[in-house]
Amino acid sequence: MIRRALIVSLALAGCAPVHARQAPASLPPALPAADLPPLFAAEVEDARSFVDAMMERGVVVPVPRDPGGGYTHEQHKRNYKAIYLGGQLYRVTGQQAYADYVRDLLLAYAELYPTLGDHPARANQNPGRLFWQVLNDAVWLVHSVQGYGDIRDTLSEADRQLIDDQVFRRAAQFLSVDSQATFDRIHNHATWAAAGVGMTGYLLGDDDLVERALMGSDKSGTTGFLRQTELLFSPDGYYTEGPYYQRYALMPFMVFADVIAKHDPDRHIFQWRDGILLKALQTTIQLTYDGYFFPFNDALRDKSLNTDELYHGVAIAYAETEDSGLLDIARSQGRTILTDDGLKLARDLAAGKARPFPFRSLLLSDGPEGDQGAVAILRHGEGDGHMALVAKNTSQGMGHGHFDKLSWQLYDNGHEIVRDYGAARFLNIVAKEGGRYLPENESWAKQTIAHNALVINGESHFGGDQKLADLHAPQQLYYDAGADLQISTATIDSAYPEHGVTMTRSLALLDVAGLDAPVVIDLLNASGNGSLTYDLPLHYTGQIMETGFPVSRNLAERPVLGEANGYQHIWVDGTATPTADNAFMTWILGGRFYTYRFVPQDSLSVILGESGANDPHFNLRREPMIIQRKSGGTAASFVSVLESHGLYDGAAEETVGSRSQIASLRHETRDGYDFVIVETTSGTRTALALSYDRDPTKTHNAKIDGTDVRWTGFAARIALDGEND
Amino acid sequence: MIRRALIVSLALAGCAPVHARQAPASLPPALPAADLPPLFAAEVEDARSFVDAMMERGVVVPVPRDPGGGYTHEQHKRNYKAIYLGGQLYRVTGQQAYADYVRDLLLAYAELYPTLGDHPARANQNPGRLFWQVLNDAVWLVHSVQGYGDIRDTLSEADRQLIDDQVFRRAAQFLSVDSQATFDRIHNHATWAAAGVGMTGYLLGDDDLVERALMGSDKSGTTGFLRQTELLFSPDGYYTEGPYYQRYALMPFMVFADVIAKHDPDRHIFQWRDGILLKALQTTIQLTYDGYFFPFNDALRDKSLNTDELYHGVAIAYAETEDSGLLDIARSQGRTILTDDGLKLARDLAAGKARPFPFRSLLLSDGPEGDQGAVAILRHGEGDGHMALVAKNTSQGMGHGHFDKLSWQLYDNGHEIVRDYGAARFLNIVAKEGGRYLPENESWAKQTIAHNALVINGESHFGGDQKLADLHAPQQLYYDAGADLQISTATIDSAYPEHGVTMTRSLALLDVAGLDAPVVIDLLNASGNGSLTYDLPLHYTGQIMETGFPVSRNLAERPVLGEANGYQHIWVDGTATPTADNAFMTWILGGRFYTYRFVPQDSLSVILGESGANDPHFNLRREPMIIQRKSGGTAASFVSVLESHGLYDGAAEETVGSRSQIASLRHETRDGYDFVIVETTSGTRTALALSYDRDPTKTHNAKIDGTDVRWTGFAARIALDGEND
Ligand SMILES: [Zn+2]
Ligand SMILES: [Zn+2]
Repeated sequence: MIRRALIVSLALAGCAPVHARQAPASLPPALPAADLPPLFAAEVEDARSFVDAMMERGVVVPVPRDPGGGYTHEQHKRNYKAIYLGGQLYRVTGQQAYADYVRDLLLAYAELYPTLGDHPARANQNPGRLFWQVLNDAVWLVHSVQGYGDIRDTLSEADRQLIDDQVFRRAAQFLSVDSQATFDRIHNHATWAAAGVGMTGYLLGDDDLVERALMGSDKSGTTGFLRQTELLFSPDGYYTEGPYYQRYALMPFMVFADVIAKHDPDRHIFQWRDGILLKALQTTIQLTYDGYFFPFNDALRDKSLNTDELYHGVAIAYAETEDSGLLDIARSQGRTILTDDGLKLARDLAAGKARPFPFRSLLLSDGPEGDQGAVAILRHGEGDGHMALVAKNTSQGMGHGHFDKLSWQLYDNGHEIVRDYGAARFLNIVAKEGGRYLPENESWAKQTIAHNALVINGESHFGGDQKLADLHAPQQLYYDAGADLQISTATIDSAYPEHGVTMTRSLALLDVAGLDAPVVIDLLNASGNGSLTYDLPLHYTGQIMETGFPVSRNLAERPVLGEANGYQHIWVDGTATPTADNAFMTWILGGRFYTYRFVPQDSLSVILGESGANDPHFNLRREPMIIQRKSGGTAASFVSVLESHGLYDGAAEETVGSRSQIASLRHETRDGYDFVIVETTSGTRTALALSYDRDPTKTHNAKIDGTDVRWTGFAARIALDGEND
Repeated sequence: MIRRALIVSLALAGCAPVHARQAPASLPPALPAADLPPLFAAEVEDARSFVDAMMERGVVVPVPRDPGGGYTHEQHKRNYKAIYLGGQLYRVTGQQAYADYVRDLLLAYAELYPTLGDHPARANQNPGRLFWQVLNDAVWLVHSVQGYGDIRDTLSEADRQLIDDQVFRRAAQFLSVDSQATFDRIHNHATWAAAGVGMTGYLLGDDDLVERALMGSDKSGTTGFLRQTELLFSPDGYYTEGPYYQRYALMPFMVFADVIAKHDPDRHIFQWRDGILLKALQTTIQLTYDGYFFPFNDALRDKSLNTDELYHGVAIAYAETEDSGLLDIARSQGRTILTDDGLKLARDLAAGKARPFPFRSLLLSDGPEGDQGAVAILRHGEGDGHMALVAKNTSQGMGHGHFDKLSWQLYDNGHEIVRDYGAARFLNIVAKEGGRYLPENESWAKQTIAHNALVINGESHFGGDQKLADLHAPQQLYYDAGADLQISTATIDSAYPEHGVTMTRSLALLDVAGLDAPVVIDLLNASGNGSLTYDLPLHYTGQIMETGFPVSRNLAERPVLGEANGYQHIWVDGTATPTADNAFMTWILGGRFYTYRFVPQDSLSVILGESGANDPHFNLRREPMIIQRKSGGTAASFVSVLESHGLYDGAAEETVGSRSQIASLRHETRDGYDFVIVETTSGTRTALALSYDRDPTKTHNAKIDGTDVRWTGFAARIALDGEND
């Protein structure tokens, strides 16, 4: 049985200050569940199935003991989920049993909470009370306070007082006072804490808590929720820790903002800072391919839009904006939340209002002022199999950041072709260091050589020093997404201060006459002081079909590449010294062929390797890579092209275009200009010309292959055979 | 425009002997395409799009030159597809242009064919005329004769004569006379040839060709199509080369049988030998998991039911039987064929007549008499994620067979958990040995160590001698698929004649009290002459979460395991000497955990390895394995259990049951009985008891853990704690 006035009754659920709250009137007449839109009805059933099972097991509130993944950890997670969903089920169905169960759980917490000190399994992070780290306690509060809000009116005065004081005031006190150091950070952990404390304040009518949540513990506004929205997101809505944490951080922002909007509409929180929160939600979605987040920094690769945080974010943002693209995302999620926002979304989805979400090429600046580098996303085509090049020119992004300046990824045909390793971690798996980050996260996943980024003298960027790294960011020099050329150019001169190295990298999707798909052009110039060794890895996915160059193979014994900075984790499969006519390699993945071709600059050798050496506990994935190594010299130019071609259909036993259609790749420089010239096997020649001149009106000219060419601005595509498109 | 009388007009298309054939009457009134059922209509559109594109390119019939994957090879494949589909499109749409294009193509072949000798790219196989091997020529004929049959009536007498004589009679002559050695084999290549020749005979009204096709070139019936149905399939419809070739071989059987049934209904070809052809079709489907064929022997792993051969087989069998489970398969295929059979199937599918295909546990005998071993399939659960254990106790299966006696595979949760490597081949990829079998197919894929099979003294079964292997087969001792115990037991004493080794292996799915899913029990007893080394590999898929035993790791340099028989391709990651309390290893795959646990018999060590050593051209996949090695002794008992447990949901960040719930595994023997006792962490004990006595009525008893137990027959599950189910 569903309350007929659900949409109204939910609107302020868990939000009204206690002094404004009325005793509940007689329940409105019930609405049959069959009248709910399918997405919402399914959600009600899911919640029932979870909460009913919890109710069968009774109230189980154990004394905290275990780290992440352990029993008490998981039980307290199940409990907050039951409190949250139980409250919502009570509001939706009117069934008193749900309210009673939430009450009983909270009464058990009221007994437990006052007895708690620091969690016994505290790690090196800040300890929580119920959980090993304070972050989990904040998450517990954000959920529990919502469920509590849904049933608080039904309680006896004594129970209400007990739960108010012994659970929620204590939890808010713990987060905002006892854990002040965390609370006043500009960091997603603090956002969760602020949201929990602020929502508790609204529910209990405690303006002091609300004020602390919004303005920081000293109420000055130098910290707290509002300041976090200013400092944690760039003007383009990019969260500096990267997409994986952006997804996570977004939830308390959206949930708390929703409560603020409903309580303090005059704050216009969703319009705050040019609508930064809604922009951040849109950006979070743009930072995905086939639903999966780009795995920058300490990211778990299996995180997708199908995650609780985004069910909330999408429903709240949709209720605010009625953006039909969000309905498309909700449809692919197949989930929503049991609030009036979720109900509205589910109704509009059922009414057929969804439109495809407009994934597109875009540049997302990083840093509060948008001047700390950027992420450039270049997309070609549409839908699940489209091509997406991601250039990561962002700042370090704090403790979860990787030393991967100017790195990149390529997605195509539904696969990650040029990879980012993500984090070395098995979340919540006890046998893997209790589910925490593994040692290999430091020794491999964060290191520069584990990325598609340039390594000098075998050392990671900033010497692997995060504090130093946080002080510097690349500069995005250029970005353009034209019809036949999409390009991003960025530079950084601070990653190797000892060697004075400047690296400038252009990554482009270039249409080449005669080829079906654009090719990736990768042009990286580096220079520094003294004689340096330059390693440029490409972490690809797939199995090698052929190498143009002969490889000296380590067939019966595999050595490791080095001793430190990630090199100790690389098995060496072989080495080679390519020449201009054979400097390419082809692999296959997902029924498509990929050829990586490069210009063999002076003193270039190639290393074929695989991750997984010096990994005593089998913590690493074993993945292939090719490293271009230039030994010696004060400067290097890496010019590469990655070509997607052909088709292998095992079911139909059909193979076409298994060999590259590019005949040659050349790099020419003249007067500070760079030219990359691609010639196909059918004889067409297409060039990428770079002036590096940011004046968009300035005209440049040069002679290529004896022909005068002319272009305007920073970069251009030039069809050398006079094709006129 | 569609001919209204399609179903009638197609029934004898391409089938009537020429002397019985009438000039076509005026075309029946056209039926709008919109009246066709969706599956068929989509097929018409697909065919149009292919044939229209071919017609745009014109008639291109090149002089044969290239091997598989090369241009002329692919062009002649495209041509037979155009002839086949063009003919069907003409019949379905009545559009003369299709008939004309098929005619023009065939006229071009009439010019080319008489000029041809052996194909210039002939390999070690029997050469064809149009293609590098005669098999492809037979496939060309099977398709082309069908398309020709659809348009032959429309031709001028002169064109008809020319094509009859210069293409089809010549092709039939080439296959049945010039290539008599192939034609008279009992082998799938001969089935294709027989089908092509026989269908040509029916079309041209040439009884001699028909007779040769059915009874062999000497018309004695010792070879030919009918004999092939007797010798190539077991009484259970299993094809001795394995599922991958069964799928392939089935097509000419079904297509030719369909033509025979329509021409010579009195032959009752589909009832022949107890309905062997329809049984073979059903068996082909049963030999899959989630639509993919078990990759026994030289199989390409990406072959699924979504393949041309099965579109034909399913449509023909459905038209014959109206088995609603076949409609379910057609639905998942999303394809059918453009014949009256395909039309009927599509209509019934659209009418909602499909029922789930009944995948089930079953024993499939091998050999013409059913006494050459068997495949046992043990399934638990239903649908995409069900568990399936496959015990491969078949005969060698000729040249494409692998030395894998008593090997097995396990599928669970949509993944192949315990793997079969399949073939080492990249079909039609020129850079990989021209698309042929790779050298590593012999040196790795066929070898015993590459399978989940017992290796003695580092040598493959039968010394890797196929001729010897073809003389012997395992004996299937027992099979039963009960509710709480499914089991297969087989034995072979001929795989190591020099060492006089007998191996007997039982593979079971055993319900264990307290566990959610049945566990796999693997009990392998072996004995021989003198002191032997016994290696039992398990080729698993996934990443190691933990090993109970400490591993001596090769962290910075990886040696290979051996020098020959596949051992040269194994990198050694580490070795260990497990004890009873730590002899287990857990890995993760697809969000589920798998623990492999074994009894550490005397002199047992363990090797953790990975394929990929000594692979100069990167031809091998790199996949992990664990090898139990018993060094010395005239007998060995390998007792292992594989347990599927828990859940890892990265999206929801939820992990449960990541650790094994089995506390101990024991093996006890008494009076020739074997007992495997599994004790769970919650203390329940469940035993598998084996008497090896094939008398199903005989009662056995013994004492286990001090308790008297009693069971009847070959094998039984015994709940040692008196549970009464
Ligand atoms: Zn990274
Ligand atoms: Zn095999």
